[in-house]
Amino acid sequence: MSHVITTQVPHGTHDAQGPGDPHDPQGGPGAQGGPGARDTRDPETARPTGDGRGRDRPDEPEAAALLERVKTVVEPALLRAVDRLPGQIRRIARYHFGREDAHGAPIEAPAGKAIRPALVLTAASALAGGPGPAGEAAARAAVPAAVAVELTHNFTLLHDDVMDRDTTRRHRATAWTVFGESAAVLAGDALQALASRLLAEDPHAASARASARLADCVIELCAGQQADTALERRRPGEVTVEEVLAMAEAKTGALLGASCALGGLYAGADEERVRALDAFGRQAGLAFQLIDDLIGLWGDPRRTGKPAGADLAARKKSLPVAAALASGTPAGARLAELYAAEPAPGEDLETMLRAVEEAGGRDWAHAQAADRMARAMHELSRAVPDPEAADGLLALAEFVTRRTS
Amino acid sequence: MSHVITTQVPHGTHDAQGPGDPHDPQGGPGAQGGPGARDTRDPETARPTGDGRGRDRPDEPEAAALLERVKTVVEPALLRAVDRLPGQIRRIARYHFGREDAHGAPIEAPAGKAIRPALVLTAASALAGGPGPAGEAAARAAVPAAVAVELTHNFTLLHDDVMDRDTTRRHRATAWTVFGESAAVLAGDALQALASRLLAEDPHAASARASARLADCVIELCAGQQADTALERRRPGEVTVEEVLAMAEAKTGALLGASCALGGLYAGADEERVRALDAFGRQAGLAFQLIDDLIGLWGDPRRTGKPAGADLAARKKSLPVAAALASGTPAGARLAELYAAEPAPGEDLETMLRAVEEAGGRDWAHAQAADRMARAMHELSRAVPDPEAADGLLALAEFVTRRTS
Repeated sequence: MSHVITTQVPHGTHDAQGPGDPHDPQGGPGAQGGPGARDTRDPETARPTGDGRGRDRPDEPEAAALLERVKTVVEPALLRAVDRLPGQIRRIARYHFGREDAHGAPIEAPAGKAIRPALVLTAASALAGGPGPAGEAAARAAVPAAVAVELTHNFTLLHDDVMDRDTTRRHRATAWTVFGESAAVLAGDALQALASRLLAEDPHAASARASARLADCVIELCAGQQADTALERRRPGEVTVEEVLAMAEAKTGALLGASCALGGLYAGADEERVRALDAFGRQAGLAFQLIDDLIGLWGDPRRTGKPAGADLAARKKSLPVAAALASGTPAGARLAELYAAEPAPGEDLETMLRAVEEAGGRDWAHAQAADRMARAMHELSRAVPDPEAADGLLALAEFVTRRTS
Repeated sequence: MSHVITTQVPHGTHDAQGPGDPHDPQGGPGAQGGPGARDTRDPETARPTGDGRGRDRPDEPEAAALLERVKTVVEPALLRAVDRLPGQIRRIARYHFGREDAHGAPIEAPAGKAIRPALVLTAASALAGGPGPAGEAAARAAVPAAVAVELTHNFTLLHDDVMDRDTTRRHRATAWTVFGESAAVLAGDALQALASRLLAEDPHAASARASARLADCVIELCAGQQADTALERRRPGEVTVEEVLAMAEAKTGALLGASCALGGLYAGADEERVRALDAFGRQAGLAFQLIDDLIGLWGDPRRTGKPAGADLAARKKSLPVAAALASGTPAGARLAELYAAEPAPGEDLETMLRAVEEAGGRDWAHAQAADRMARAMHELSRAVPDPEAADGLLALAEFVTRRTS
């Protein structure tokens, strides 16, 4: 297919102040939450773009235009759904989605790029032949599924922010810091119920299957977040790469996969294609996570919005670190020793970072990211053999992983 | 109908050590959670019975036998559903349902009386004509709805226990005290998703409508819990009786109502009857809450498992207290003053209790409970005009409110 692109991922340009970072985040300090926060689950805000750089990359304008179109359709439906919530729960949800400030006054803050709704609608359109009246009709019919996915995503964000003690999200104070932990948990609970409500009331023939699939995804997301919490508590030597990959797949890949799968279901795809769409989203999600972890270690702090070495100082077992720790190399053993020490101000994070690289963590993560994108492309070609029809999904995968090629 | 019974509720026998308490709780200390916890949402464990006293009351044996039969059917289906959860999430859920101890060893602890599943199956059976092959078939078909309701109930318990800092539930340590707050929240999230999953995969013609109704109920439960948290933070004079009643209806009545409604939906009832079933459950739930609040103030501490006056010491704005505070009487003003003072060890709780009574809080709550039960009976006769068919639901309402008559 004409849109299979090389899976070359950026390498050697991620030095802490280097200019070659493929991501162009607009995020100021705080956009990432606390230093202990894992940047999973939210490719769209983890490394946001916005300064216009890189617009010359082939799929960038297409993805941006597509996301804009999706937002125009999905956002009003999303807000209509949120406005069905009662009283204070609605207020918290409207705050979280950037429609109200802490005092209930109307504002218009960014509510995320709507990557997941875009995957739903684009997958539905792709399965119906891509751009054209049939594709557009399929996408329109899938709007309730797109809204349900976005509500689900935001339910997990509300809960994760409480658990991870993250104080900022989308450049604003997280809901729990404004309304309290209980209120944020309850608002998240209500968003999960609202997602289920939208699918239950949708007369579309696929809505029940979509609801079942989304519920399975939520269970996987919970298991992923649970595994993450448990992993961070364990000693460096006790964590395997497979575990960290499985955790990242559950936390980040599962909902991207489900988004594509729901789009496919709404377009009437058979189970085999739905599975391929799911795998496409999962693998793209894993590629995103690997690249995001690389940038967390070697990215430009002026761009990531996090101080250099913050992930190391927080002893995050990100994917490159997990690979280094499990490498069986002297550098890996050295890293394990450094990671076992209590974090202290002024500690030598540069030595740690070098140990990750010497132990092969950086190379491994680059190779894995390339491999995952290759798998994603393979699954996409199975799900949507016509390259033209697959174009939108390809552009979104590119956008999510934001590679240099 | 032959089963309409007088709505006489116990009065004058609730002195702190009095023998006339209509409830026969087996709950030892700790069965009620922390002293600040509101006993809403769980009629089945709030004042458990178990010593065999009171078995001579007319509907008691019927309800007990009915609950036993329901458990035999629902519990295996519930555990099969829970066992579909992954890894640690499954472990937390199995712990919560009394199937495992904190170390994962198998146990058999009580997992509640399954009042809500019983309401689902009994409502389905009642709408299909009551006892007999048709009623039994309707109840059997409604098992997925019964399991979904019980999963939903337990999702809210897991979350509420975290929010209310309750340390015991069903005589065991709450999940969050064993596995941590995040783990308990995630297990609750997963149970909510699992409930939605069961309805989504159920081919029954009513499953989508049931799913929509259950989602609405969850949103109401969240709003109720949110209102409760907010109410407890406000000053005594600022809380109206209507607010406290609305909160109790959302927290306790909504899921009892939804249970009956789901049973009706599964038996093919029209919307009017479904609404009447919902109202029946709600009103019975409110009657339960009123009586439970009365016992929280005037019940025998040896039976409630809480020290006398614990609700007052915690400044709980229970229904009789809210009515007293809003009474406009001198005693109400005195109570407001006492409630505004910081709780202190050795404070005069007896004077407070007398102020509630003098301000009319006790009488009001008794009258309200009687009124709510009357409304419940009225709604039941609309939903199920045949008294024989309505018998099971009536017995369950009696069981939940456990009156002397």
